[in-house]
Amino acid sequence: MSDPFQLDPRLAADTFLVGETPLSQVLLMNDARYPWLILVPRRSDVTEPFQLSEADQAQLWQESMRLGAAMKAHFASDKLNIAALGNQVAQLHVHHIARFHADDAWPGPVWGVGSAVLYSDPALEVLKGELRSLLQQPLSLTAAT
Amino acid sequence: MSDPFQLDPRLAADTFLVGETPLSQVLLMNDARYPWLILVPRRSDVTEPFQLSEADQAQLWQESMRLGAAMKAHFASDKLNIAALGNQVAQLHVHHIARFHADDAWPGPVWGVGSAVLYSDPALEVLKGELRSLLQQPLSLTAAT
Repeated sequence: MSDPFQLDPRLAADTFLVGETPLSQVLLMNDARYPWLILVPRRSDVTEPFQLSEADQAQLWQESMRLGAAMKAHFASDKLNIAALGNQVAQLHVHHIARFHADDAWPGPVWGVGSAVLYSDPALEVLKGELRSLLQQPLSLTAAT
Repeated sequence: MSDPFQLDPRLAADTFLVGETPLSQVLLMNDARYPWLILVPRRSDVTEPFQLSEADQAQLWQESMRLGAAMKAHFASDKLNIAALGNQVAQLHVHHIARFHADDAWPGPVWGVGSAVLYSDPALEVLKGELRSLLQQPLSLTAAT
């Protein structure tokens, strides 16, 4: 298979691991201003989605679409932002951000706007509980094993 | 099939139509600071990629990956940014932006940074010629008919 996967330390510092899909780690960005999940395929040394194998590309797309749809429904957001940028952290990661007309950055992108509002412990526990059921529903459909 | 497709007038005002894929219009953003192409699936009333049919989703992903790989190779960029945001223009469109360590917005995202530098007519003609061959190579592989 591939090399042992190591999450980029900057991604690890800014996020919480909240789930695993067949291909990816699911990270929650520690910024209470936006419901913000990141898929990180467990593949070393990949920086662009088109560098993945065809099978991994198809899997990532499926995971991304199901995660995006589940987030939009669960959070009743006005829009989903889905993006693979990677300018600051090269390791391939795909942002999924539930956006609202009243959020801090609307209608701009969220990156570089103000400072993150860190989750309180109680708020984090509540959200993790919600995410646990959210991730089980749509993403378990993609279980590879 | 679907309703007659109408490109959002704001997208039309900011871009040039430079190609067609089996699913999408290929638009060039009129901003000479970055090689910036946008795929717009010819499907009316779709704002999120997961609202497309499964077949259209697979086609969009394939077109996006091939376009991104072709852009990165052709422009020898340091990174590709691929994003479906849609906060300002709801009509589904996917940005593909070739990024360089020396570009105006690096390492931030490009949206909202400074003002667009419009292409001169000669520069536009040169770039359109390059894009014509770039689009024929990888994207013709996906020709549906």
